[in-house]
Amino acid sequence: MIKELRIDSSRPGLHEFTSQVAEIVSDGGLEEGLCTIFVRHTSASLTIQENADPSARRDLEAWLERLVPERDKLFTHTAEGPDDMPSHIKAALTSTSLSIPIVDGALALGTWQGIYLWEHRRGRRSRRIVIHLAG
Amino acid sequence: MIKELRIDSSRPGLHEFTSQVAEIVSDGGLEEGLCTIFVRHTSASLTIQENADPSARRDLEAWLERLVPERDKLFTHTAEGPDDMPSHIKAALTSTSLSIPIVDGALALGTWQGIYLWEHRRGRRSRRIVIHLAG
Amino acid sequence: MIKELRIDSSRPGLHEFTSQVAEIVSDGGLEEGLCTIFVRHTSASLTIQENADPSARRDLEAWLERLVPERDKLFTHTAEGPDDMPSHIKAALTSTSLSIPIVDGALALGTWQGIYLWEHRRGRRSRRIVIHLAG
Repeated sequence: MIKELRIDSSRPGLHEFTSQVAEIVSDGGLEEGLCTIFVRHTSASLTIQENADPSARRDLEAWLERLVPERDKLFTHTAEGPDDMPSHIKAALTSTSLSIPIVDGALALGTWQGIYLWEHRRGRRSRRIVIHLAG
Repeated sequence: MIKELRIDSSRPGLHEFTSQVAEIVSDGGLEEGLCTIFVRHTSASLTIQENADPSARRDLEAWLERLVPERDKLFTHTAEGPDDMPSHIKAALTSTSLSIPIVDGALALGTWQGIYLWEHRRGRRSRRIVIHLAG
Repeated sequence: MIKELRIDSSRPGLHEFTSQVAEIVSDGGLEEGLCTIFVRHTSASLTIQENADPSARRDLEAWLERLVPERDKLFTHTAEGPDDMPSHIKAALTSTSLSIPIVDGALALGTWQGIYLWEHRRGRRSRRIVIHLAG
């Protein structure tokens, strides 16, 4: 089964959408299976991270921001704005697809795991995510 | 089919569990299919790496340790210990899920590929891993 | 369904093979499903990246090259050549497996997404990739 989600990201950083995926899994009615999440962009990515303390997510965002700063003299691909090339690098270092088992009709996430869209660009954007479910 | 494994990690770094996954695949009896491995934690992760020379794994661990050191002044999420925030970053840079095809009844790993749990925290821990098999 | 591809990489960097995967998906005849791609090596990896402007790929390659330089004093695993240990690190930071949903009989890639083998070693090499398709 295939479903498509749109996640609106109003700012760079982590945007949780665990509950939307959980609802699709619940509607799917599979007792056991696999849920695969795919983001259809190269300047946003996916990650599973701690969903408890927001300071962990802020530190994660700040750390990657420092590792991949804008206006690096190495960059030649600058026509799409200073946040474009860093966004491709950040996407390459994180994930475009994630697969999560379904156990007892629900995502087999650990207690502290949330599913996040990682927006790497500035500006209001709407990101397309495809969800595949199978037994 | 779903199976759960527990991997005990007594120290930070790479812990191989290829043989446990291979046994689950063998027991599953699928000639062709897909084996997906998912770790239910945000301070440990998964990787497929060279299983031959242990020096390659030690260098990999040391390199990531240097890239993401403890006690970085940028960190505000420090309440859970100095090794907690680096562990979330290291998990984000590696993998939470891996999918390996099954061919002729066995994992289609290359000759030099082993499956590893990458423990990013200190102390004796038991990590939960979910394995999904399908044809 | 399982298919194996060989991708010849004559130089380090990104080698697109989207059209080969698309052809396998088309031949498979699935209207809906999941395509999983797995690389059987630890010194090459997979990534989905922008397929439009080649400068984005060149900058991505150059950035990772600078992050993981050869002849780092930290390396002890040097017997297989100066490009071997950096190649394992680069593989760990990117992906060994990717899963892409199949929608309306085709890969659900975004407009600007291409599938790439990322060769991390020098010299002419032939890399083995396994493709799994399921509904």
